[in-house]
Amino acid sequence: MFESAELGHRISKHAYQRELATLRTELLDAQFKLKQSAAFPVKVIISGPDGSGKGETINTLYEWMDPRDLSTMAFAMPTDEERERPDMWRFWRALPPRGRIGIFAGSWYSIAIQRRVETGLHEANIEQKAQQINRFEEMLANEGALILKFWYHLSKEAQKRRLKALAADPRTAWRVTQWNWDRLKTYDKLQQAAGHILSMTNTPWAPWNIIEAEDDRYRSLTTARMLLDAINTRLAETTRHVSPVVKSRKPQLDRRDVISELRLERQPMGRRTYDIELARWQGRLAELSRDPRMRKSALICVFEGADAAGKGGAIRRVTAALDARQFQIIPVAAPTDEERAQPYLWRFWRHIPRLGRIAIFDRSWYGRVLVERVEKFCSEEDWRRAYSEINDFEQQLVDGNAVVVKFWLQISREEQLRRFEEREKIAFKRFKITEEDWRNRGKWEAYHDAVCDMVDQTSTAHAPWTLVEANDKRHARVKILKTICTRLESALNRLEPSETGKRAGKRAS
Amino acid sequence: MFESAELGHRISKHAYQRELATLRTELLDAQFKLKQSAAFPVKVIISGPDGSGKGETINTLYEWMDPRDLSTMAFAMPTDEERERPDMWRFWRALPPRGRIGIFAGSWYSIAIQRRVETGLHEANIEQKAQQINRFEEMLANEGALILKFWYHLSKEAQKRRLKALAADPRTAWRVTQWNWDRLKTYDKLQQAAGHILSMTNTPWAPWNIIEAEDDRYRSLTTARMLLDAINTRLAETTRHVSPVVKSRKPQLDRRDVISELRLERQPMGRRTYDIELARWQGRLAELSRDPRMRKSALICVFEGADAAGKGGAIRRVTAALDARQFQIIPVAAPTDEERAQPYLWRFWRHIPRLGRIAIFDRSWYGRVLVERVEKFCSEEDWRRAYSEINDFEQQLVDGNAVVVKFWLQISREEQLRRFEEREKIAFKRFKITEEDWRNRGKWEAYHDAVCDMVDQTSTAHAPWTLVEANDKRHARVKILKTICTRLESALNRLEPSETGKRAGKRAS
Repeated sequence: MFESAELGHRISKHAYQRELATLRTELLDAQFKLKQSAAFPVKVIISGPDGSGKGETINTLYEWMDPRDLSTMAFAMPTDEERERPDMWRFWRALPPRGRIGIFAGSWYSIAIQRRVETGLHEANIEQKAQQINRFEEMLANEGALILKFWYHLSKEAQKRRLKALAADPRTAWRVTQWNWDRLKTYDKLQQAAGHILSMTNTPWAPWNIIEAEDDRYRSLTTARMLLDAINTRLAETTRHVSPVVKSRKPQLDRRDVISELRLERQPMGRRTYDIELARWQGRLAELSRDPRMRKSALICVFEGADAAGKGGAIRRVTAALDARQFQIIPVAAPTDEERAQPYLWRFWRHIPRLGRIAIFDRSWYGRVLVERVEKFCSEEDWRRAYSEINDFEQQLVDGNAVVVKFWLQISREEQLRRFEEREKIAFKRFKITEEDWRNRGKWEAYHDAVCDMVDQTSTAHAPWTLVEANDKRHARVKILKTICTRLESALNRLEPSETGKRAGKRAS
Repeated sequence: MFESAELGHRISKHAYQRELATLRTELLDAQFKLKQSAAFPVKVIISGPDGSGKGETINTLYEWMDPRDLSTMAFAMPTDEERERPDMWRFWRALPPRGRIGIFAGSWYSIAIQRRVETGLHEANIEQKAQQINRFEEMLANEGALILKFWYHLSKEAQKRRLKALAADPRTAWRVTQWNWDRLKTYDKLQQAAGHILSMTNTPWAPWNIIEAEDDRYRSLTTARMLLDAINTRLAETTRHVSPVVKSRKPQLDRRDVISELRLERQPMGRRTYDIELARWQGRLAELSRDPRMRKSALICVFEGADAAGKGGAIRRVTAALDARQFQIIPVAAPTDEERAQPYLWRFWRHIPRLGRIAIFDRSWYGRVLVERVEKFCSEEDWRRAYSEINDFEQQLVDGNAVVVKFWLQISREEQLRRFEEREKIAFKRFKITEEDWRNRGKWEAYHDAVCDMVDQTSTAHAPWTLVEANDKRHARVKILKTICTRLESALNRLEPSETGKRAGKRAS
């Protein structure tokens, strides 16, 4: 991969000056158009070995461009808020919105490469990591992001020369530490690891640009020119490209599916049984949520269901067992403009709880494959690719020690009508019935299909769906509580027991 | 303060049930109207001694109200991201937006009361803290927030009874630890400290509601009823109340002011001198920003100035000395809808850097007393009260170890015209001149007055303004760099030297 970057590329001062005059104008023009259109975000990843001029190039870009529309994100040691969430959370929170250029000095690659060099991360793990990165970047690209990845290449000799030059200049000497000289010894290892990862992540939607890094002028000019061309090309594109998707529809030969199989008209749970069962599972949840091991885990509950299926009531029975200081309910409504300027999943990532805490999503990221699909708020390509994006997302949550419990509450069409009518009678529930609810009822079949597809596509081992027969509210609530308890308990049991059993328990006045 | 809360208030089960039926309807109605209008945020502070039923009441509110529009914020140990920012940052980031109800379980009061009890915080410090809280809450109230503060009062005997009851019930026994029993011994001390702080922060815009806490029904019902009444009263108000402000105008008897006194037409700095001085101060800034002591400090630079005064160019000369991974430039533009749903200063608080980092504001919170004043985007009351709000804000930044350096770049009217015309000639700067710029020129005098008032009102010992004669760009840039260096150096010298001199310096691949 590095062959073309060892040819000794150089740019003369004269050619540099000449090129620069037009380049700066064009860069500012492109930046201005990008900002005005706010059509897409630009994500620039700058990577390379020590002394390859990453920082210098970024600073040069700041000189040439309008720095107000640039952000540089450095990722040093994760903060505790970051450590207690999935690995990718820190990158999600730093994504530039549409219209802006975000420069990643350090990125998801740094971690993979560093681990490979320092701890000799297994080949298989590296490939798995590369696979995750590819899927993440493909999602960003499908969401409209322009991704530019630069690797600044230095031959071993060139790196030595660069470090010596930096050390000799009093203005830059501070940057070269013993650590850098030590790292030089691992040149071959780093080169090999980087080459491996780069080749596996050199995708059409986010290809690597390998740039020979020894000559400052060549490196900076090439970077800027590539950035400019990529922005201009994207600005000129009139059609949006997304990954191909297979559009297919399952034939309903026997009209049997996971929803129709639900026994909605069961014998209702008696009041006495309900009271006993409710108290039992609420008590259990109260215990589990206060279990010291819970501090190493997070709980994420997702409630989806037909209108009037009883999500709100069920959520209240769950929260009744919890300390309000430990959970947040996230009602998912129309996105804000900050959310609209980001990839779809961004508005959920921002609510991912820290370890020890609980998030309850009242509707969720499944909106894309439910309401957005049915109402055609997004294209078929968008919702079809969402299935695997969501699976990846939930896998990351689980890898970050979260327990993900998802409920679909199903009621029969007749039961929904009964509840709508009942609600219109009872004053304090009246506001819950909107015209939209009545309209949604008309799309019952479309929702039915969407739900079946959703369950088939996203009920995974790490984050299975629980379908809840919700015609009987008591049955539904008990089943939900019981499921949360069972899932949470088995997750806690998989954790090693906490070293001490004592409680943090210091509460504020 | 607690007299009425020791009368043994109780509500019978019967009266409770009767009251509840209408209360819940009314609560849901009020919540719905609040959400629809999104007219104001509601901030509910729940405080009181251990066992006073804070958590129970919050959970009861969740049962009675629509939990989707409630958020409860618990403030346990600050995270490292919080610790490395001013004390109030963690509360700012948790403020509920307009239309929502945020419940603070633990708040700015918890810290003050706890410190008073545990470390015997000095009387004077407590009063200073109370003063800060009052100003903070007054600002929130002026920004439209409805603030409800509840103190759940228990007599010493009642507290003992409550703890015993909690410990006896298997469902709540986990909540009573030795720590709580130990705290019981400090009852008198806590009571005294709380009484003192409560009386000092019992303001008309955010009065305390002391509620007798022993009887669950009485406590919950009283809280909910007060909350309901307050929301309904505010919803019915047609005029917005803000603190009184004195509207006065300084007579310009001799037409001398801080701006007119500036020597804009000085001898221009020669190219050679400039090159030497620029390199000198950029070098100094490069050193200072990499000084190990910088890890205990943050740097916040504010750039304000007339259009075309050279803010952008000056910022670039500053950032050229810095590592792009250490700073962020925050261009202040129109607020997003999430920002509009919050108090004015919120959108600046969210960009306050951690220790060790640098934020450069290209325009800033001074927009309120400059463009918003001149263009009448806010009322005179709003910009007049902003002076002291801003001073409070900057005081908090400085208390949190930030160095706040503020520049006003002044050019003459003729120089501005010259630059506008010049910019229209040079292609790559063309986009910078908008119609708005030409329009602003017509308001030269109004801006002149606004700047003079701003400097007089907000040039404080902890965050002084530096007025920059910017007709000569070289002079301006050198003065700015020199000022930042001088301010930063003296701040770093006031810090005790770092225990080690070694650099963190581990950079990512």
